[in-house]
Amino acid sequence: MNRLTHLDEAGAARMVNVSAKSGTHRSASAEGRIRMKPEALEAIMSGIGIKGEALATARIAGIMAAKRTGELIPLCHPLGLESIKIDFTDEGDAIRVAATAGLTGKTGVEMEAMTAVSVALLTLYDMGKALDRTMVIEGIRLLEKTGGKSGTWRVMD
Amino acid sequence: MNRLTHLDEAGAARMVNVSAKSGTHRSASAEGRIRMKPEALEAIMSGIGIKGEALATARIAGIMAAKRTGELIPLCHPLGLESIKIDFTDEGDAIRVAATAGLTGKTGVEMEAMTAVSVALLTLYDMGKALDRTMVIEGIRLLEKTGGKSGTWRVMD
Amino acid sequence: MNRLTHLDEAGAARMVNVSAKSGTHRSASAEGRIRMKPEALEAIMSGIGIKGEALATARIAGIMAAKRTGELIPLCHPLGLESIKIDFTDEGDAIRVAATAGLTGKTGVEMEAMTAVSVALLTLYDMGKALDRTMVIEGIRLLEKTGGKSGTWRVMD
Amino acid sequence: MNRLTHLDEAGAARMVNVSAKSGTHRSASAEGRIRMKPEALEAIMSGIGIKGEALATARIAGIMAAKRTGELIPLCHPLGLESIKIDFTDEGDAIRVAATAGLTGKTGVEMEAMTAVSVALLTLYDMGKALDRTMVIEGIRLLEKTGGKSGTWRVMD
Amino acid sequence: MNRLTHLDEAGAARMVNVSAKSGTHRSASAEGRIRMKPEALEAIMSGIGIKGEALATARIAGIMAAKRTGELIPLCHPLGLESIKIDFTDEGDAIRVAATAGLTGKTGVEMEAMTAVSVALLTLYDMGKALDRTMVIEGIRLLEKTGGKSGTWRVMD
Amino acid sequence: MNRLTHLDEAGAARMVNVSAKSGTHRSASAEGRIRMKPEALEAIMSGIGIKGEALATARIAGIMAAKRTGELIPLCHPLGLESIKIDFTDEGDAIRVAATAGLTGKTGVEMEAMTAVSVALLTLYDMGKALDRTMVIEGIRLLEKTGGKSGTWRVMD
Repeated sequence: MNRLTHLDEAGAARMVNVSAKSGTHRSASAEGRIRMKPEALEAIMSGIGIKGEALATARIAGIMAAKRTGELIPLCHPLGLESIKIDFTDEGDAIRVAATAGLTGKTGVEMEAMTAVSVALLTLYDMGKALDRTMVIEGIRLLEKTGGKSGTWRVMD
Repeated sequence: MNRLTHLDEAGAARMVNVSAKSGTHRSASAEGRIRMKPEALEAIMSGIGIKGEALATARIAGIMAAKRTGELIPLCHPLGLESIKIDFTDEGDAIRVAATAGLTGKTGVEMEAMTAVSVALLTLYDMGKALDRTMVIEGIRLLEKTGGKSGTWRVMD
Repeated sequence: MNRLTHLDEAGAARMVNVSAKSGTHRSASAEGRIRMKPEALEAIMSGIGIKGEALATARIAGIMAAKRTGELIPLCHPLGLESIKIDFTDEGDAIRVAATAGLTGKTGVEMEAMTAVSVALLTLYDMGKALDRTMVIEGIRLLEKTGGKSGTWRVMD
Repeated sequence: MNRLTHLDEAGAARMVNVSAKSGTHRSASAEGRIRMKPEALEAIMSGIGIKGEALATARIAGIMAAKRTGELIPLCHPLGLESIKIDFTDEGDAIRVAATAGLTGKTGVEMEAMTAVSVALLTLYDMGKALDRTMVIEGIRLLEKTGGKSGTWRVMD
Repeated sequence: MNRLTHLDEAGAARMVNVSAKSGTHRSASAEGRIRMKPEALEAIMSGIGIKGEALATARIAGIMAAKRTGELIPLCHPLGLESIKIDFTDEGDAIRVAATAGLTGKTGVEMEAMTAVSVALLTLYDMGKALDRTMVIEGIRLLEKTGGKSGTWRVMD
Repeated sequence: MNRLTHLDEAGAARMVNVSAKSGTHRSASAEGRIRMKPEALEAIMSGIGIKGEALATARIAGIMAAKRTGELIPLCHPLGLESIKIDFTDEGDAIRVAATAGLTGKTGVEMEAMTAVSVALLTLYDMGKALDRTMVIEGIRLLEKTGGKSGTWRVMD
């Protein structure tokens, strides 16, 4: 009953067949945060030049990973992503990363948004790890999805 | 003073030069967890066949991503990973993922362990998302590192 | 007359132009087998845990390679694969691998099915090579294709 | 006893730890063939220009795939391949592909040679499939390996 | 006013949203050249066998890179390229490379044609660098584009 | 006599065998430029935020491509790059890109420096192409190499 759709009746992994689905516009937003010491956070967030390239590096990493989600996640369909956007927010003791992905297609883009957030966070971790080894990545979750048969869904806080 | 080593004096991103470092044996362990509803957790963790392929899929995804860390994280050095191991633990309301990576080389393998954990968690998310859209990935952090100039470091809980 | 479609009039390699083709639903099935000593076959096929992860690893490898067929085979078009499924059969002195791929598009998916089978077989070889260096991969061939201008084709045994 | 080295005691897939191994020079040779109708074989093998680019395309595909073996085969170590060579032989009713790979390192290069042969054969299949859908890929096997703790091994026919 | 479309209002990099665009047939042609000493040029261009594989290698490299443009160029959309063709011309003191790419889709294929030319030129450089270290790659530019809202554009010399 | 080292006696492409070479420290620097209209150049180079992310995007693209040179250029050896650095200079009517790569190994890193420059230039082209379709990429060449049997070489202007 509560079967995983990525496994067939015998429990074998498979990529779900989406041939019969119709292509509708779909979007998904996700978020996550990386908690770190003030000096690491400041080094990443403050200072014109430094800010530019530290955040830009994480943003580009997240965008490029989102385009390759189907290569990273074994049972994800390869998708022709049509939009991807990543934003950073300074939350005092953490940097919040939010991503929104979109396309017109047969499957949702939740995994693209989640992957963009995860890889941007890993890149911030890589940036800051010489200053703070105790950083923790937290709260990676889906915020919203639109399109497809199941329509719009929003997380309730 | 608290400069990010991945940015040069002008704030430009760069891959740190490790040519002069000596190659020592290095290892790193990381962990993270994905919190989910009981029915999703049970579908992933229980049942011989299903368990095998759901966890195996996440494990393979994590192992393959660890080998490609240098492709995903812009300023990571490409490494010839010599070992990578990923374990799962059923924690009742979450699945814990732990990874240990190792090699003999000039740079540490923290990012390989962190990437393995992150992508294994994303794959579990992908597996369970049809059953539970409210899953949250939490607590991705480094547990331990050995080798290199800075020697052994362990997280303190 | 019997010209290779992947070479132009001068014999230069090219990716065939499929712009003018219409997108129809297409599928392809392929098979192959790996012949090995009984102890290697048994180690791969028998035992709950071991069976799960040995076959699962080969299955995931085949699925992931199928999605990247256009990266591996120089003149293949990059495709948005919509389904891929890989099965294993114990044939006593060999493991048979069969794959079925599908999508709605302008080109067939024969190469995706053939690549899935080949890489799954290579992964089984990698698994078993410490037990049997004389394993042989055999009989990789197309079983059936549907869709496109040429319609359905089935191998005759 | 006859345990698969790629699975741990619990049957979980892992990349074998080779940190403690010493780096020796290693090589491996493999072969395989693709059986096809005379007109397909002739189109691939005869004619200056055509021959050049059909075989060259398969050769380049095999070389490039050999370099990415660690990306394709889940539990293979990523290697810095130091040499790879691919040859074709016209056998009348088949094209034989042979590959030899080499490096100085901690693990063997059998999978690199086997992958080079497999992907070169798949590329020939892709080239000829419009002329002959009944082509069969056969006899992919290791011919010889040198180096490492187990030393030289040669197939016995 | 003269804003870069790849940056949002705040100057942050993004992949432009093309969801609302309609899919029309698009093509793009680009060129470039590599200037080299006569002996290097002759080694690459003359001689049946040598010519075949030197140019074929560059051609395959360009074709394969064109298919992966979205992986290389951070803000390019991943595309299902439908045609790509690369030609070489001996210009006496240089080899000219020209590429034409095409697809039916929502974004143009200029970057695919430019990337094909660039990587083919880099491969020729790699081929010839043991004979001539002073080779220079020059004049990589767009020649023509068709399709999309802006229609046909041709370079004026 | 003036044979291409990447082709064997029969003219077949191969990856040169470097097993017998010793690993010395090697570096390479390359440059290139993209000529464009003042409004495109200004949009890319001026303005704090915009400057940050436009150049940062090109820099990250170049760094990431350098790490994957062995995947892009068919006969290049896969290398464990130890350093890569990319700089931009505003030359009034052009942006100059310079890259320096380094590692301790058996082969030079000329192709890594050349690839970094080429892909950074392509990314700038992608950034500016909506403002100026007549941009031209020019003068991509090696500036200097050190290490290996042939020692230091510098371009003479």
